[in-house]
Amino acid sequence: MVASAPGKVTLFGEHAVVYGYPAIVASIDKRIYVNAELREDEKIRINAQDLRTSGVIVSISNGEIQITTDYGRTLSAIGYLNKAIELTSEYLGVRKGVSLEVRSEMPVGAGLGTSAAVSVATIAAYSACLGYELSKDEIARLGWEVEKSVQGIASPMDTSIATFGGVLKIWFEGNTIYRVPLHVGSELPLVVSYVEREKSTRDMVMWVKSLRDKHPELVNGILEHIGRTTLEAEKALVGGDLREIGVLMNINHGLLEALGVSSRRLNEVVHTARMAGALGSKLTGGGGGGASIALTLPDNIDILTNVLKLVTPHVFRTNIQYEGVRVNHLSD
Amino acid sequence: MVASAPGKVTLFGEHAVVYGYPAIVASIDKRIYVNAELREDEKIRINAQDLRTSGVIVSISNGEIQITTDYGRTLSAIGYLNKAIELTSEYLGVRKGVSLEVRSEMPVGAGLGTSAAVSVATIAAYSACLGYELSKDEIARLGWEVEKSVQGIASPMDTSIATFGGVLKIWFEGNTIYRVPLHVGSELPLVVSYVEREKSTRDMVMWVKSLRDKHPELVNGILEHIGRTTLEAEKALVGGDLREIGVLMNINHGLLEALGVSSRRLNEVVHTARMAGALGSKLTGGGGGGASIALTLPDNIDILTNVLKLVTPHVFRTNIQYEGVRVNHLSD
Repeated sequence: MVASAPGKVTLFGEHAVVYGYPAIVASIDKRIYVNAELREDEKIRINAQDLRTSGVIVSISNGEIQITTDYGRTLSAIGYLNKAIELTSEYLGVRKGVSLEVRSEMPVGAGLGTSAAVSVATIAAYSACLGYELSKDEIARLGWEVEKSVQGIASPMDTSIATFGGVLKIWFEGNTIYRVPLHVGSELPLVVSYVEREKSTRDMVMWVKSLRDKHPELVNGILEHIGRTTLEAEKALVGGDLREIGVLMNINHGLLEALGVSSRRLNEVVHTARMAGALGSKLTGGGGGGASIALTLPDNIDILTNVLKLVTPHVFRTNIQYEGVRVNHLSD
Repeated sequence: MVASAPGKVTLFGEHAVVYGYPAIVASIDKRIYVNAELREDEKIRINAQDLRTSGVIVSISNGEIQITTDYGRTLSAIGYLNKAIELTSEYLGVRKGVSLEVRSEMPVGAGLGTSAAVSVATIAAYSACLGYELSKDEIARLGWEVEKSVQGIASPMDTSIATFGGVLKIWFEGNTIYRVPLHVGSELPLVVSYVEREKSTRDMVMWVKSLRDKHPELVNGILEHIGRTTLEAEKALVGGDLREIGVLMNINHGLLEALGVSSRRLNEVVHTARMAGALGSKLTGGGGGGASIALTLPDNIDILTNVLKLVTPHVFRTNIQYEGVRVNHLSD
C-alpha cells in the first residue's frame, strides 16, 4: 500500500490561529509518500532516505540508523512514523509488524507541514494494510494525536489540511475545529523559499505568548488584525483577485514582523521577492526562519524563481493541489 | 550671527501621526549651523558646501552653482534657505541682503529632519542679524511655513523639534499642535544607520493613504496600534526602561512594515542591529529607505556600530540632546 498526503502553506493567519482567529491554509502539489508492507515478524522497520532537510539525509535501514541530524528535526520526523503506527494499532486494536518506506518531495521542518503529512500518510497506509478504510475524520483525528504525542502540543491545522486537502479556512473554539473549504477563483502561482530555521514553531509560539503576557492590549490588537487580514483575504481568494491577495500577504507579513516572528533572512527573501515582481510575499508557518511564499502572475514566475535563488538555494515553485490523503494499492 | 538647530529622530509613531495619533520625537546631538552676515547689497548668497547627502556635495558660492544632485534633495535643501529668508523678511517687514554659510553634521534627506533644522536655523540667524529676537513659537511657526511652501505639504513635527528640542510627544487635532515634553529616565544610546532613499516621505505618506483608502478598517487598525505602541513607549521612556523601549521599537517597526513603508535594505539594517545586540531597532521617519535607529546598552555600542558598518557605510552613534534652536553672536 502506498499512501500519500500533501504538504501545505499557510496563506494567512499563522500565530493568530492559536488565539482563535481564522487561518487559511492550502495543500500544495508536493507530497509525502509512505509505502507500507506488513511483515511476518512484529517489527517496525523504517526506510526514510528521502526525509531530507536542507542538505541533510537521514537513513534508517537494515536495522542500522544513520543520521546526520539538523537540530534533531529529521530524528523527530522518524518519531512521527513510529507514533503513527502505535496509535493506529491502538485505535484499531490490531498490531502487526510493518516495513515503511518514506519519500518526500519537500524539505522537512521548513514549515510546510511535513510532519503532519508523514503522520497522516502513515496512518492511511498502515490501516489500509490491515484491511481498514478509515474515514478522513478518523485519519485527521489520529494524525493530530500523533502530532500532540510527539510534540507535546500541536495545532490540528496541519493534519486537517494534509487529510482533507484544498484551501481551508480553519479556526478553533475550545476543542472544536471549524473547517470551511474555499473555492479559490484563480490559479495561485506560488514560489516557496526556504532559509535555515533558527527557532522552532514551538519557540515562536511561546515567544508570542510571552510578548502577549507583557503587552496584552497591543499584541491582542495585532492578532486581531491578522484575523481581519485573513477575512479580507478570504474574499480576495474567492474572487481570484491576485493583486489584492498580494497586498494582504504583505500586510500579514508586517503584522508577523510586529509579533517578532520574522527574521533577517526571512525578510531578505520576502523583500527580494517583491523587488522581483511578486504581487505579495510573506513568511509562512511558525517563522524564526523556515519557509516563505511569494505570489506572482504566471508570466513572471521564472524571473521570480531565478532571483530568489540568488538569496537562498532552496526555492521551488508550487501550486495549490486540492487532493488530500490518498491510498493506492501498490501496482508497480 | 550663527544659529544652529538639531536634527531629530522619530522614536515612535511616524505615519500614524498624520492621522491624529501621537508620535514621540527627539532632538539629537547632530546639528545644522547657519552663519548669516548682512550684505551691503540686496542679494542672497549661499555657501552650503557641507549640505551633503551620501557622497554628494552641493556648493553654491561666488555666484556659481555647482550641484551634483542626489535625486534633487540637495537642490531642494537650498530652496529651504531661500524660502526661510523670504518668509522671515515678509514677517518682519524688513528685507536685507545676506550671506549664508551652512554646515551640517548629518546627512541631508535621510529622515533626520535636516530641512526643518536648516529652515529654523536660517530664520533664527537672519532675524538676529536684523536685530529681532523671535520667540520659539514664532520660529517654529515660520519654519513650518517654509516647509509647507517648499514641499507643498508638511507636518509641523520636524520644525517643532528643531526649534524646541528635547523629547516631545506630539499630536495634531485639526490645525492645533499639541507638544508635551517628556523627561526620559535614562540615557538613550542610539545608533543611526542610513541606507539610500528609494522613495520620498511624501511618496510613502501617499502610499499609506492609498492603502488606507482600499483597506480602511485594516489600515486604521494598524495606525491605531502604532498609536498604542507610542503610548506604551511614553511610559517606558519616562521610566528609563531601555529593554521595554527596545521591544516596543521592534513592534513599531513591524507595524510600519505592515503599512508597506519599510524596504529590503531597511529591514536588513534593522535586523542586523538586533543580531548585534540592539535592544530594539526600527526605521525612523518616512521609510522607503533612509534612516533607522537602534537602541543599545552603552557597553555594546562599539560592537553594534561596527557590525552595522558591515551592512551600510553610513552609521553614526548619537544621543538625545535637549537643546533646540540656539543663536550665538559670532565670536571666532
